[in-house]
Amino acid sequence: MSENTNEPQYDFGIMGLGTMGRALLLNMADHGNAVCGWNRDPSKAQAVQEETGGKVGGFSDLGLFVAAIRKPRAIMILVPAGGPTDGVLQGLHPYLDPGDFVIDGGNAHFKDTERRITEMGEFGFGFMGMGVSGGEKGARYGPSMMPGGTPEQYERIRPILESVAAKYDGEPCVALMGARSGGHYVKMVHNGIEYAVMQLIAETYDILHRAQGRGNDDLAQMFGRWNQGELQSFLVEITSIVLAEKDGDKSLVDLISDKAKSKGTGKWTSQDAMDLGMPVPSIDAAVNAREVSGYKGDREAAEKLYGTPLLGNVSDIAEGDLEKALLASMILCYAQGLAQIRAASDEYKYGTDLPTVAKVWRAGCIIRSRELAHIQAAYANRTDLPNLLLDQDYSRRLHDLIPALRKVVVSATAAGIPIPAYAASLNYFDSYRTGRLPANLIQAQRDLFGAHTYERLDKEGSFHTQWE
Amino acid sequence: MSENTNEPQYDFGIMGLGTMGRALLLNMADHGNAVCGWNRDPSKAQAVQEETGGKVGGFSDLGLFVAAIRKPRAIMILVPAGGPTDGVLQGLHPYLDPGDFVIDGGNAHFKDTERRITEMGEFGFGFMGMGVSGGEKGARYGPSMMPGGTPEQYERIRPILESVAAKYDGEPCVALMGARSGGHYVKMVHNGIEYAVMQLIAETYDILHRAQGRGNDDLAQMFGRWNQGELQSFLVEITSIVLAEKDGDKSLVDLISDKAKSKGTGKWTSQDAMDLGMPVPSIDAAVNAREVSGYKGDREAAEKLYGTPLLGNVSDIAEGDLEKALLASMILCYAQGLAQIRAASDEYKYGTDLPTVAKVWRAGCIIRSRELAHIQAAYANRTDLPNLLLDQDYSRRLHDLIPALRKVVVSATAAGIPIPAYAASLNYFDSYRTGRLPANLIQAQRDLFGAHTYERLDKEGSFHTQWE
Repeated sequence: MSENTNEPQYDFGIMGLGTMGRALLLNMADHGNAVCGWNRDPSKAQAVQEETGGKVGGFSDLGLFVAAIRKPRAIMILVPAGGPTDGVLQGLHPYLDPGDFVIDGGNAHFKDTERRITEMGEFGFGFMGMGVSGGEKGARYGPSMMPGGTPEQYERIRPILESVAAKYDGEPCVALMGARSGGHYVKMVHNGIEYAVMQLIAETYDILHRAQGRGNDDLAQMFGRWNQGELQSFLVEITSIVLAEKDGDKSLVDLISDKAKSKGTGKWTSQDAMDLGMPVPSIDAAVNAREVSGYKGDREAAEKLYGTPLLGNVSDIAEGDLEKALLASMILCYAQGLAQIRAASDEYKYGTDLPTVAKVWRAGCIIRSRELAHIQAAYANRTDLPNLLLDQDYSRRLHDLIPALRKVVVSATAAGIPIPAYAASLNYFDSYRTGRLPANLIQAQRDLFGAHTYERLDKEGSFHTQWE
Repeated sequence: MSENTNEPQYDFGIMGLGTMGRALLLNMADHGNAVCGWNRDPSKAQAVQEETGGKVGGFSDLGLFVAAIRKPRAIMILVPAGGPTDGVLQGLHPYLDPGDFVIDGGNAHFKDTERRITEMGEFGFGFMGMGVSGGEKGARYGPSMMPGGTPEQYERIRPILESVAAKYDGEPCVALMGARSGGHYVKMVHNGIEYAVMQLIAETYDILHRAQGRGNDDLAQMFGRWNQGELQSFLVEITSIVLAEKDGDKSLVDLISDKAKSKGTGKWTSQDAMDLGMPVPSIDAAVNAREVSGYKGDREAAEKLYGTPLLGNVSDIAEGDLEKALLASMILCYAQGLAQIRAASDEYKYGTDLPTVAKVWRAGCIIRSRELAHIQAAYANRTDLPNLLLDQDYSRRLHDLIPALRKVVVSATAAGIPIPAYAASLNYFDSYRTGRLPANLIQAQRDLFGAHTYERLDKEGSFHTQWE
């Protein structure tokens, strides 16, 4: 392991040499960055140093690790969110100098990031939250990264991050997403969109496999074909891989339990969207769908009580209908998530630039897709666009795509197939394009039982009626 | 106003003589309780005393007010939630004795109630959270009340609360809902269900009025008829009243703005349900629908871009279909809310008894309905019932009702009418009764990109695959 040379040798350090930390460190070293890693376990620290022929410094002594990094020090931590992060920060305190800053690369809740910025700031230290997407492979060969912080902090780490980031048309998929916790916020919404698109793909699969009886190999090929077209995206691509995977002579996917787990980022997205008063019903539906899936015992009992779940074969839904319906719904998910980010940027003063968000998502991350280039263009074309649905080009495309989505929702509903995310996406679209909704009735009811008052269409002000 | 007689004369005091506090105090006095009220504004304190011919004591001096109540003192506060509540508690501190307790009758977030219980407990004072439903009229002539706390605290105030509560078959609609913040929790979910049912009624109205062209007077009569049948409920009843209300020669409801407001309790319900991993999609959809309604300018712009929102006249939906669809969806909302209360009771150790919750909701509160007597019976029949959908009687009734709900969702979706709460309710039902959902695909995807592992149907344990 590295010894103290009294001379800082490294530009950047990473604490936590688990799957992600190790992969990112090796990626940084590959691109000629002088970087070092720390792990409590000396064998892990030693391993990364030896594996790189000494190019990467490996430390298990915190003081030596910190001293080996040039000031102002930039130290990234990749440890489990929550208590472990606070523990690592506490441990770092004695070794840091004012102006040094720590980058949290985990999936922290943005409110924890805000708290840590304040706590570290009291000692003169900086703290950045950075979303990192792409899984282990992404971290090793090109992640999408979403840092939040000050322009000065970002400039200090920009060259290293740009060197390792995924590239789209040569442009690195990393940029400052906004002030303070803005990076973690953007990453949180990224994950919310990820939940929604995964649920939409699962519903698509359910219609084709369970209702129409198409086999997994056939569908693996179909998702492969879709991935050559407008639906080109990481999640469609891996669906093809997943469906092709065998376990002996069976499809592995058929043997996997249908109780979906989650780490909470989708839930956080929905919860904070509600705090902002910003509807993200496709994400809510996806969060709910994972929850319902967990009640496997109840579901089996209900199936006994209510009889066979499938009420029809949805033979009227063609493969091409689903291809369009999935694309329409994916667009509606991006629209919801980006509208949430805009609202959050206003509320939390992030100063987030939406074209930049779309740009950084085009490669490296889990929700990367061909569609994001169009989305970037739409926002670049009109930076104050309140919602993707109000873009002229998108209105034309959705005009073409929505009938297929409507057909899928109608037919699957008639057949008793649960399609909560498809239905929520279409209802979002139908609500959003309806100038006059029946919420006037709700306002009247609220005034009747709670004297909450109402507004009128024909006069300014707040009104209360003594209802008969 | 009352003077200090050195002898406590009153059994109960209320702080805050706004609409609700005044109404509840007069109700208590009507039933022969010795009660007093406090308000910072002497004229309000004096008014309530004079209006009752001195039966109700009115104070604006806090020391005299507290001294006039017998120990252990029970003092209810009815002030706006948040800062004002904490301010009133701070002001009370110097005058209270150990064993005294304060009852917060506002719509506080249950986590604030937990904090206040701790803070007051440090001084030896008690603190109860109590939900009060029924609006001003309910408070004056019979509210439904949902207190949380210890049995000893409840016993101290039980006679007064029972005397003023709404009665159902002679039984008072008040009972201890659980320990600590359990009362505020039950009231929060009550409001979540209220949001969902109001949204369902609004969607029903939209189908009949905007799509089928039926007039408000006609629909006022229809809701009146429905209120004589299985749908008998406060919210259906007031819909009839609202639709009949005139403004000159016009229907008032047509002049009311379709931007729905909210006070946050529905949102809190959805957010905490997500923390519990308990799906309440009908409530989420209702929260979302109010949010979407607020983006009136965007909706009008979208309507211009996308053309006329109505794509058909839904002439195949009969009035009787909607009557059944609304009843089915109402049942699904109660099912979701009660499942959430059960999960919360387990998680937060409230010890809430579900039949008692249903019992207290049967009269006085906003979501009161004929249906709640059946629901009480279902839970009383099987106290460990995980979900109303698993009750035998309900499975029979839903078997009859669901086809109409399905028809409404299919037809309204085809016609482009936003029905987010109807669709969410049906998708909840369809998900819950499906033994095998496509969440296996989601677990496979998560393992592929994040090494999150998966469970199998054929073996115990956690598995990870090196996907091709």
